[in-house]
Amino acid sequence: MSWTVYLSGEIHTGWREAIRAGSEARGLPVRFCAPVTDHGASDDCGVAILGAEENEFWRDRKGAGINAIRTRTLIGQADIVVVRFGARYKQWNAAFDAGFAAALGKSLVILHPPEHAHALKEVDAAAQAVAETPEQVVEILDYVINGVLPA
Amino acid sequence: MSWTVYLSGEIHTGWREAIRAGSEARGLPVRFCAPVTDHGASDDCGVAILGAEENEFWRDRKGAGINAIRTRTLIGQADIVVVRFGARYKQWNAAFDAGFAAALGKSLVILHPPEHAHALKEVDAAAQAVAETPEQVVEILDYVINGVLPA
Amino acid sequence: MSWTVYLSGEIHTGWREAIRAGSEARGLPVRFCAPVTDHGASDDCGVAILGAEENEFWRDRKGAGINAIRTRTLIGQADIVVVRFGARYKQWNAAFDAGFAAALGKSLVILHPPEHAHALKEVDAAAQAVAETPEQVVEILDYVINGVLPA
Amino acid sequence: MSWTVYLSGEIHTGWREAIRAGSEARGLPVRFCAPVTDHGASDDCGVAILGAEENEFWRDRKGAGINAIRTRTLIGQADIVVVRFGARYKQWNAAFDAGFAAALGKSLVILHPPEHAHALKEVDAAAQAVAETPEQVVEILDYVINGVLPA
Amino acid sequence: MSWTVYLSGEIHTGWREAIRAGSEARGLPVRFCAPVTDHGASDDCGVAILGAEENEFWRDRKGAGINAIRTRTLIGQADIVVVRFGARYKQWNAAFDAGFAAALGKSLVILHPPEHAHALKEVDAAAQAVAETPEQVVEILDYVINGVLPA
Amino acid sequence: MSWTVYLSGEIHTGWREAIRAGSEARGLPVRFCAPVTDHGASDDCGVAILGAEENEFWRDRKGAGINAIRTRTLIGQADIVVVRFGARYKQWNAAFDAGFAAALGKSLVILHPPEHAHALKEVDAAAQAVAETPEQVVEILDYVINGVLPA
Amino acid sequence: MSWTVYLSGEIHTGWREAIRAGSEARGLPVRFCAPVTDHGASDDCGVAILGAEENEFWRDRKGAGINAIRTRTLIGQADIVVVRFGARYKQWNAAFDAGFAAALGKSLVILHPPEHAHALKEVDAAAQAVAETPEQVVEILDYVINGVLPA
Amino acid sequence: MSWTVYLSGEIHTGWREAIRAGSEARGLPVRFCAPVTDHGASDDCGVAILGAEENEFWRDRKGAGINAIRTRTLIGQADIVVVRFGARYKQWNAAFDAGFAAALGKSLVILHPPEHAHALKEVDAAAQAVAETPEQVVEILDYVINGVLPA
Repeated sequence: MSWTVYLSGEIHTGWREAIRAGSEARGLPVRFCAPVTDHGASDDCGVAILGAEENEFWRDRKGAGINAIRTRTLIGQADIVVVRFGARYKQWNAAFDAGFAAALGKSLVILHPPEHAHALKEVDAAAQAVAETPEQVVEILDYVINGVLPA
Repeated sequence: MSWTVYLSGEIHTGWREAIRAGSEARGLPVRFCAPVTDHGASDDCGVAILGAEENEFWRDRKGAGINAIRTRTLIGQADIVVVRFGARYKQWNAAFDAGFAAALGKSLVILHPPEHAHALKEVDAAAQAVAETPEQVVEILDYVINGVLPA
Repeated sequence: MSWTVYLSGEIHTGWREAIRAGSEARGLPVRFCAPVTDHGASDDCGVAILGAEENEFWRDRKGAGINAIRTRTLIGQADIVVVRFGARYKQWNAAFDAGFAAALGKSLVILHPPEHAHALKEVDAAAQAVAETPEQVVEILDYVINGVLPA
Repeated sequence: MSWTVYLSGEIHTGWREAIRAGSEARGLPVRFCAPVTDHGASDDCGVAILGAEENEFWRDRKGAGINAIRTRTLIGQADIVVVRFGARYKQWNAAFDAGFAAALGKSLVILHPPEHAHALKEVDAAAQAVAETPEQVVEILDYVINGVLPA
Repeated sequence: MSWTVYLSGEIHTGWREAIRAGSEARGLPVRFCAPVTDHGASDDCGVAILGAEENEFWRDRKGAGINAIRTRTLIGQADIVVVRFGARYKQWNAAFDAGFAAALGKSLVILHPPEHAHALKEVDAAAQAVAETPEQVVEILDYVINGVLPA
Repeated sequence: MSWTVYLSGEIHTGWREAIRAGSEARGLPVRFCAPVTDHGASDDCGVAILGAEENEFWRDRKGAGINAIRTRTLIGQADIVVVRFGARYKQWNAAFDAGFAAALGKSLVILHPPEHAHALKEVDAAAQAVAETPEQVVEILDYVINGVLPA
Repeated sequence: MSWTVYLSGEIHTGWREAIRAGSEARGLPVRFCAPVTDHGASDDCGVAILGAEENEFWRDRKGAGINAIRTRTLIGQADIVVVRFGARYKQWNAAFDAGFAAALGKSLVILHPPEHAHALKEVDAAAQAVAETPEQVVEILDYVINGVLPA
Repeated sequence: MSWTVYLSGEIHTGWREAIRAGSEARGLPVRFCAPVTDHGASDDCGVAILGAEENEFWRDRKGAGINAIRTRTLIGQADIVVVRFGARYKQWNAAFDAGFAAALGKSLVILHPPEHAHALKEVDAAAQAVAETPEQVVEILDYVINGVLPA
């Protein structure tokens, strides 16, 4: 059996790659998926495909609609949704994804530095695990899939 | 991973083939499905298989029931439902499919010429994207699946 | 017990009032609801409340979003959804509502003149009853609620 | 019929009271509900009721669990969920509530100042309406319930 | 609190009246509902309301559609569905209702004479209780609602 | 894509084999499934596996429970549920399966001789197609899957 | 608005009465419900109503079926399910109810003495709150409903 | 077709291995899954991966959350959930899993020695089969999958 893990949230550090590499190193049977993490493409997709907009609000709306096709579909297929909150930006779509996944009954792992703990308390309380590092997420996957604890 | 895309609506132009060909040209991992697009077969299937009817209303009912087996099953399996409204005919079954897909939480892409925009405003508002050409639908698929924007 | 009936579709004739009056005359315990049937208000609500838009497409989108708050909520509460198709206009939102209601498992009554029967065959086939007159809808309600047949 | 509206998000300005007062002035049949908006009580409830915790993380967890009993129940009963994002703080639980409500198929109204539009584009795209002022939310309710547009 | 009990199945003996009278004698807070039990009306409703049909099959279809509006709505509202199988007739719609209610997760009580036990074994196995007399159904209701056992 | 078709109901004639053979002859991509059709095994399975019972009622219950594991699982996986009513026996479990499948939103094909039409009118009205012969079911499958009408 | 709270589990101490009395003293708008807590009646109901059984296993089965009509219905209506584990007995039905309620997405409060904490860790982890005394449950209700913390 | 069977409950005897070996000997197409059955790993996983806790209660909570990722995902994928209750320990998580699986509509097989029958009567009543030995579970699987009864 293969597990499907959706990696939502912060797109400015290499945490997704760290989780992917760590999982691969252990040979875990996981299919990872994620939103489009190219910030520029994610902002431009609506107008690049469907035509220019003068109004910024509708420019964003066009792009957000197309991005939602990807994110909703992949979250719907995931066994586990990992949501990472980083040090900067509002990251409201990360929290939105967490709420969306929670309402669908998905297993939720929240990944954030300790200083965000109080601001994220409601989100953390909806999760099955709260981690601080990508390596911990890999260890969770290894344990959940194989029953193997860290050496 | 393979995506499943249902192509609903207008059956008198080659838009389905354009989307299929464009997707194939880009090597997109998509399984397309659709209603039976042979208009005559779609009208006749009920009486051809289950026996003649004198009354046109019940002749249509017999056929619509059989067609629904196909359309409901395939819409239920789809990740994305594309609905095309063309220049002619009432096309109420296209709008019905859009409403059905929306209530199931499917991602919805509406494809229509600009002159139908006002008449389709409620349908468009339920969609993640509104396109005018089959090529735009292919570009949406390429972006949603691969994160690739038009050159 | 009170029944809730949503009256969707055509807004240019008095069919809703005919059904309401007929039901009231029989003392039927029905709560009727409907979309906003003032065409102008329905078109303008988005920009009138949330601010003007230069682009017609987004003007329509703003209004359609607000209208959807009403229609989705009320369809979700209905026991029976009656959808009327009239002689003119595209009426795609009527067909959309029918598809939406069908996917929610609502009881569906379609009301249309006989000349639309072939174009509406898929919609009719998803319905529990197809009527031609508002009086027939009242009779369906009286029978369904009280077991009373027309005299 | 009475409508149920849940008011989620920012707790440092009087927007909830403005919506309540505006609705009451118009005589709208709305039952409003909301999270506990006393910041201190919301932070302390876990340890005040279930006993002290040395560790801040678990102190927050205890409180967040109890708060979730209220918020999940009331969001589940709401017809419309209004989520307000203010000028300060992370407000991740507001975005979480929006995602949760969206996945449940609730009608969603997002209320925020224009400068947050880009950061909230995915959240806005999941909503039926995006407003800037409490008065607009009241006008949406008046239109949705009574079909009445602003004078 | 009031309980809603749907009484499905056999329409040729007075079992519904016996359950109603017994419940009333005990003052049980139960709202009973049922299909239209006037056999003639149930057969005729389609053509009486929506117009004659030459073909018996479609005459039946018209009526069955209208009856389904009542039965599906009321089964959907029921807390408990009681299905009675009598000595005569095929009673396939009774078994259909039992299957429908079981799939909806309704509590199911089957009422039949002992000689039907083997033929009904799959249906009985889906039920929470199998009774032989209306009085037993009343006693089940009294116990389930009030915790009162037979004297 | 492969379709899954569950063949429920009458077990005393070769209709399942006819449908299977006809589908194979046409090369249809269908996976057929069915209840255990060995009448004796179906009756005995409970006591044969879990131990004897003196009371016939509980002997039947034990068997029906085990049979339900198979039937509920396979009906849940089916795209189409075909239910055959034959000339003899009560066949209440066939009607129960039809109701169960209808409530799950499965496509339903009912197969019966014309003389059962009136007794089955409610069941037929819940179906997408009503056939009289296994060959018609094969033709429905060929049309639904391939869009091919009978020659 | 009134809240519905189901009190599941241990039936040998007065914890239900303590919660009811404490809530009443605070004037909380709560409707409490519970299984039949008369141990003898709960064991006997099957055979007392539906007739004697020689075999203890089936005697229990008859009673458990009838009890399930009450418990499943009331848990399905509850906003909050409180499950109490006491000092003695296996109390597997309490844990079963907790699992059932969790899968339905109900808010869950577990009430147990500290010595059961390790054995109940999976159950506690599925709950929004873990309390030790009935008074704490009353305080949770007062806070959740009114935002009032203990003095 | 392959069946998925989740083996929940008691972890101190070799019943899972007996079922696996028996199924393999018969060549049954079954994918078995289970919780992590290494008691120590199951207790330690939270703190081993996510960091130490002084408080036992939160140590357990961390581990239970991670274990839930595995158990909820695998129960959600299962066609059949087998729950074994052994001679010792509280085994509340086994009963919790049974309730969770029942609410999801999974087929449920309960496996326990006869002396637990009375304490498990509500759990047994929610199951399709109650077995005493692993061999009986294998025979149920062989019958359910292949229609084969014990020799």
